[in-house]
Amino acid sequence: MPIALPRGVKDFLPTVAGRINRISHELSRVFELWGYRGVITPTIENLDVLALAEPELLERMFKFEDRDSGKVLALRPDITSQIARLAATHLKDRAKPLRLHYSGSVLHYGERDKGSSREIYQSGLELIGLDQPEADGEVIAVAIEALKAAGLVEFKIDVGQVEFFRGVIEGLSLPADLRKEVELAVGRKDRSGIEELLPTLNLQNRDEEALLALPTLFGKRDVLARAEAMTVNPRAQKALENLSQVLDTIDSYGLTDYITVDLGEIRGLNYYTGVIFEGFVAGLGEEICGGGRYDDLLGRYGNDQPATGFAINVETLLKALEKQGETRGAGSPDFLLLNLAKEKDEALKVARYLRNKGFKVAREIAKRNMESSLSFAGSEFIDRLIIIGGNDLDKGQMLVRDIKRDKEEKVKIDDLISGAVDLT
Amino acid sequence: MPIALPRGVKDFLPTVAGRINRISHELSRVFELWGYRGVITPTIENLDVLALAEPELLERMFKFEDRDSGKVLALRPDITSQIARLAATHLKDRAKPLRLHYSGSVLHYGERDKGSSREIYQSGLELIGLDQPEADGEVIAVAIEALKAAGLVEFKIDVGQVEFFRGVIEGLSLPADLRKEVELAVGRKDRSGIEELLPTLNLQNRDEEALLALPTLFGKRDVLARAEAMTVNPRAQKALENLSQVLDTIDSYGLTDYITVDLGEIRGLNYYTGVIFEGFVAGLGEEICGGGRYDDLLGRYGNDQPATGFAINVETLLKALEKQGETRGAGSPDFLLLNLAKEKDEALKVARYLRNKGFKVAREIAKRNMESSLSFAGSEFIDRLIIIGGNDLDKGQMLVRDIKRDKEEKVKIDDLISGAVDLT
Repeated sequence: MPIALPRGVKDFLPTVAGRINRISHELSRVFELWGYRGVITPTIENLDVLALAEPELLERMFKFEDRDSGKVLALRPDITSQIARLAATHLKDRAKPLRLHYSGSVLHYGERDKGSSREIYQSGLELIGLDQPEADGEVIAVAIEALKAAGLVEFKIDVGQVEFFRGVIEGLSLPADLRKEVELAVGRKDRSGIEELLPTLNLQNRDEEALLALPTLFGKRDVLARAEAMTVNPRAQKALENLSQVLDTIDSYGLTDYITVDLGEIRGLNYYTGVIFEGFVAGLGEEICGGGRYDDLLGRYGNDQPATGFAINVETLLKALEKQGETRGAGSPDFLLLNLAKEKDEALKVARYLRNKGFKVAREIAKRNMESSLSFAGSEFIDRLIIIGGNDLDKGQMLVRDIKRDKEEKVKIDDLISGAVDLT
Repeated sequence: MPIALPRGVKDFLPTVAGRINRISHELSRVFELWGYRGVITPTIENLDVLALAEPELLERMFKFEDRDSGKVLALRPDITSQIARLAATHLKDRAKPLRLHYSGSVLHYGERDKGSSREIYQSGLELIGLDQPEADGEVIAVAIEALKAAGLVEFKIDVGQVEFFRGVIEGLSLPADLRKEVELAVGRKDRSGIEELLPTLNLQNRDEEALLALPTLFGKRDVLARAEAMTVNPRAQKALENLSQVLDTIDSYGLTDYITVDLGEIRGLNYYTGVIFEGFVAGLGEEICGGGRYDDLLGRYGNDQPATGFAINVETLLKALEKQGETRGAGSPDFLLLNLAKEKDEALKVARYLRNKGFKVAREIAKRNMESSLSFAGSEFIDRLIIIGGNDLDKGQMLVRDIKRDKEEKVKIDDLISGAVDLT
């Protein structure tokens, strides 16, 4: 029998896993510096509870029957809706706003035609209880600062506002089926698809032009002025005013260079109700992060509250960082410690001292010759060997061998411990 | 419809979740200082693959059918067996030893009669490719150092050796059914249960005494001498010799005070093949950690390798720490920043400076009066408020209000930024 994993999930081996752990930790650190506090939600939920938030994801969830209770359970396909649930129930009576962050994986079936991931590793946050544009601005600013802290240099955040599109569409008074078709074509940014639809829509010239222009409302902030001239619908106008204020906040944080305005963007999950955004790196086909305002979600759990937030796809962020040559966090030990002496006290003293200083020290326990130890260190990307005992060394001495630079030096153990010698 | 979670799983709200995150991070940090590298394994696996390692857990796994492939999948009930799989496949050709650590949750049905957890949060490690007692000693030493680093003060590690018991039992040449009953009674440390069995076993006096003594082989290292006198079985004698060497290693690390020898201990999972151990705190009914040697597990995945390791139950460790009054990591912001000025630049400058210094700063976005801001800060356990702008302050000044101590002082923003004022 082959030892295979289910499709769409994988093992992360030491180097990659180390980088993912570094990234997750760095993201959480930034979230906390902005006042967000961690929460942990379970991997499984009752299906009927998940369905309140995400009826459209029902089809893609992993479901099974709880053999004790007979209820249908599902693996969480999303953490935002769990936090909405948690905020609307356990934290209902807490003073607002709530600033909450999380890190974990979500699971759902991939799209049928792709070999896509079924387990997605996310770090994200939610800001609950504020409807001000400053809240959306803060959330986008934290996303940018977190990506920067993880080491990402060149990236763009596409910012849209779903209410603008809804306002434009509302102004056209289309029947539901046509409306859906227009939505799909605009979602795909498919100009020729929109053109094909136009004859069936019976619109005024100005509205036809507006629809065709939607996929082009992409670029710097002047997009807003073009969009404003395009529609008189008050809902769309209000959306533009709101987006403009959000962009002001981002500007006050000095982060405008990372922003692209994209009014033709309509995100998949239909719980968004205002500003939405996605993060991209040139040449990488997937978004690094995505989020936005979802003022209707908590209400589905019985406690109406405005909210905004985002999730970073940690694996996609890793790909973007690797493309960029960022490789921190691989996590190989700094030293392999080889004790040739009968007594263990010196070796243990050195190991303890170095670990206290934050060095990663692996002890060589296998009995093998020096050649094999060196080859082991090389294969594990350990750059330095420390040898204690053996014929060439006096009592109280150790040999530090730099494998990479092919150099070695004798160091008095007392000098190391007293700080006279620094192995950094 | 009530918004309920499935039984046996839960939400961790900010204060507790912050502590759990702090603990997990601290444990990983210690593992890495000892040369262990992180790996990440998937939440779901093919049931037939999991079954290779843990036939006895099959009944308790959450299972469901993969609708795309038709295969039966299961939620991982254990991470050690995943790492054994990964080491025996992907890392088969890597130089040994492998030092690997992980952090994640495992899921399985609880015991039917208890309201026990179904999702268990673990941090652990595996040392693969070494059969020396020094390897077991290292693993136990890292467990102790990790628990200490997390803040745990008073705890004990009970160390046993499953081969000792197996040797003693082997020497009795019992039929399988009686053997099982003896195992259960010894596992429960049930002296009267063993006494009741004795008449059916037909043993020599010396063997009867040995069986009755098993549950009492618990205490300091002198237990080994008592055990040695009890049996002539070579397998049992070899186990005692091995355990003695492991204890020597732990002693060389200066950690003997944490150790209790327990030769009557038989852990549930039957993949253990040598030294086993569990961590306890007085007055807490559950073990904080558990582990041991499992030399047969990798072979089930086609690559025979000796191995030893352990997992820490993070939630149980949290309980032990809380009992002890350890509350680090709650993670409330250090400051709530209130900007009353029209301009945002000073507030943003202060926030950026403080975050760079590692302070957690939440910005007050809600428009409300000072009273409400203070009450919000109080409810969120934020001890200090920074106010910028407003009538009482000159341009370039800020007010730092210590809510806990009911004190306030005016600080020049330039003095903060230049480092002349320290808010630590």
